[in-house]
Amino acid sequence: MSETITGAELERAGAALAAESARFAGLGWMRGTSGNLSVALRSDPLRLAVTASGRDKGLLRAEDVVVVDADGAAVPDQPRPDQRPSAEAGLHARIARVAGAGAVVHVHVLAPVLAAERWPGGVVLRDLEMLKGLGRGAHDDVVTVPVVANSQDMTWLGDRFEDGFDPATPALIVARHGVYVWGDDLEQARHRAECLEWLVSFTLAANQAGHI
Amino acid sequence: MSETITGAELERAGAALAAESARFAGLGWMRGTSGNLSVALRSDPLRLAVTASGRDKGLLRAEDVVVVDADGAAVPDQPRPDQRPSAEAGLHARIARVAGAGAVVHVHVLAPVLAAERWPGGVVLRDLEMLKGLGRGAHDDVVTVPVVANSQDMTWLGDRFEDGFDPATPALIVARHGVYVWGDDLEQARHRAECLEWLVSFTLAANQAGHI
Amino acid sequence: MSETITGAELERAGAALAAESARFAGLGWMRGTSGNLSVALRSDPLRLAVTASGRDKGLLRAEDVVVVDADGAAVPDQPRPDQRPSAEAGLHARIARVAGAGAVVHVHVLAPVLAAERWPGGVVLRDLEMLKGLGRGAHDDVVTVPVVANSQDMTWLGDRFEDGFDPATPALIVARHGVYVWGDDLEQARHRAECLEWLVSFTLAANQAGHI
Amino acid sequence: MSETITGAELERAGAALAAESARFAGLGWMRGTSGNLSVALRSDPLRLAVTASGRDKGLLRAEDVVVVDADGAAVPDQPRPDQRPSAEAGLHARIARVAGAGAVVHVHVLAPVLAAERWPGGVVLRDLEMLKGLGRGAHDDVVTVPVVANSQDMTWLGDRFEDGFDPATPALIVARHGVYVWGDDLEQARHRAECLEWLVSFTLAANQAGHI
Repeated sequence: MSETITGAELERAGAALAAESARFAGLGWMRGTSGNLSVALRSDPLRLAVTASGRDKGLLRAEDVVVVDADGAAVPDQPRPDQRPSAEAGLHARIARVAGAGAVVHVHVLAPVLAAERWPGGVVLRDLEMLKGLGRGAHDDVVTVPVVANSQDMTWLGDRFEDGFDPATPALIVARHGVYVWGDDLEQARHRAECLEWLVSFTLAANQAGHI
Repeated sequence: MSETITGAELERAGAALAAESARFAGLGWMRGTSGNLSVALRSDPLRLAVTASGRDKGLLRAEDVVVVDADGAAVPDQPRPDQRPSAEAGLHARIARVAGAGAVVHVHVLAPVLAAERWPGGVVLRDLEMLKGLGRGAHDDVVTVPVVANSQDMTWLGDRFEDGFDPATPALIVARHGVYVWGDDLEQARHRAECLEWLVSFTLAANQAGHI
Repeated sequence: MSETITGAELERAGAALAAESARFAGLGWMRGTSGNLSVALRSDPLRLAVTASGRDKGLLRAEDVVVVDADGAAVPDQPRPDQRPSAEAGLHARIARVAGAGAVVHVHVLAPVLAAERWPGGVVLRDLEMLKGLGRGAHDDVVTVPVVANSQDMTWLGDRFEDGFDPATPALIVARHGVYVWGDDLEQARHRAECLEWLVSFTLAANQAGHI
Repeated sequence: MSETITGAELERAGAALAAESARFAGLGWMRGTSGNLSVALRSDPLRLAVTASGRDKGLLRAEDVVVVDADGAAVPDQPRPDQRPSAEAGLHARIARVAGAGAVVHVHVLAPVLAAERWPGGVVLRDLEMLKGLGRGAHDDVVTVPVVANSQDMTWLGDRFEDGFDPATPALIVARHGVYVWGDDLEQARHRAECLEWLVSFTLAANQAGHI
């Protein structure tokens, strides 16, 4: 694959990002214009296709996408110079870099944000079959999803992410904000986001009922 | 733009209102024939296109729309003289006038009505990323969504709205009734309604769990 | 309109019943093959078109309909003699007769059944705008939705319904079972069912939170 | 029907499994790639068509299906030798064999898994009309849905299933995992899964509210 990202390549990535965004919007996880998704196009130097900022995520088009670099900044000379990346593209890029992720989804789903209120030091998930959906074990495995405080400073957030990074745990909760989940590709990242939501919803409900 | 509202102009507005109504109905926020949406067509004198009264909001047609004036009364000589505005058009018009809103959505979504029972003096939202969806700050900003008692008297309701009006807060909860949310256009008004629902759902759940 | 119900007339009624059934199934209010809907075809003698028994309510066809009499029994010489009415058709017919309803919907929606556990003597709804969706007042009106015990004896159930019947209240909760809601036509009956669900969900949640 | 399973026969089964999977995925009961469905093709020797492992259940195709034997192992010389069955196919086959089921659905629906935390010895359902959807009585019948601990050993799980098997109860909850529900065909199995979810949701909520 050449270093230059062509318009056709970016449009394919944009169409995939738009389709996944519409799906998340249908789940109610991208209310308003919240959340953003990214997929890696190149690893060295890192280039990500990120959903453009400020759009209705249920109505995104293949062209609502922008190429960013390893700092989340829009690269010059790109096929969609008219689009603006979200500030959060900086954290997408950091996660892609540190975790080697091929795709990152950031959605404002309620359960993990509530769980971060309950467990601000990290949300512990264990002994649940659905953990296999995160690439972990259904037994004899303790998964702690890190929780970091919210911030508008993506470098600070990225540092906090790195502080708590465990290569075996493909998720990060930003308190009072939302969740980042990643994987090898967009489908795996979405599957993991879906599983995380189930796991955290179960754990919260079981805790509130006094079972755990 | 001329002062006369043409049938074609009104039909375009009606189609947009019908599409947004169907979306809200799909969310379960316009049960029965409840709720209504409006969009400003002229500012001086004020003219709003409002969804017609008594219709299934999931099945609204572009022609189910009526033009009202600054008091919410149907104007004479309009393209759709056969349609009747809701009594609530009076509050839509008042909000459009006072807040300078381009669109107002009124939906019967459960969370804010429950929050008004909990906090009848106003629902306080703070330290939440989603506040940016209301045009406010994710940090160091306290948003109090006003709560007013329910009434069938739109002038009284409008006065109460004005009493508590803060130009920075584009929402009003009518206790035991529903919510009004507004913005520059229909899409922004809907985005804000979606964000408000998330913010209030989170705040209620976190409060019930004892976190705030 | 002649006394004879033609195949074409019944098919029109069946198509309307199928469309409404699919809508309720989409809401999750007709799980399995539960629930049934009816619409009056003649008033004297009473003839109802009722959804056929044992079918998936999300996949009902226009021909999945049967004509019943004032006792809920399939009439002889009808266009769809191959279809079997539900036993519950007896209660549909009783409600149509006593309340003069043009349509009756019976759905297994969770909130009213939970409310019947909380308030077995009747579910009181008051001071809520959505009450207008039941044809009642948003203020200065107290609506008590009757609750009757579950039974497989439709005559007994019908007697209990008549015992508590108030012409101003178009709904009946059958404890540990579901709800009957009626109106002049199918659309009004559905609108009322939607409003009832909202009203009862609000009232239950507000009660559990200690507000009422 | 001949002993040989043809590609056309398997494709028909796969199309039915894909359609039901998409429906369950839409309900949120097959998050990530979780869950699997099966339908019996032959009884002696037992042959099941099972959804292939590791796929998005909302996007399954008719060819994403594999034939397994009475132990849940892929049979040689089958039309889709490229597909891999889930390990859980072993429990599907055991249930089909022991219960004589024509179809088995395994979904990760939240309510039964929460109920298993509350009632690890079995979830008791009684005096509910919806029990008829499980083939049981709405009155004077006590249904105990067995709960077994989670395991990756399908033989062990199958033994626990057999230990608690009651031919009148077509469901099994695997704690901290999900639920198996079966019936004569896929539609009946789905109907029963839907009814079980309603019954358990009601029972959990009524228990939490102190009514039962």
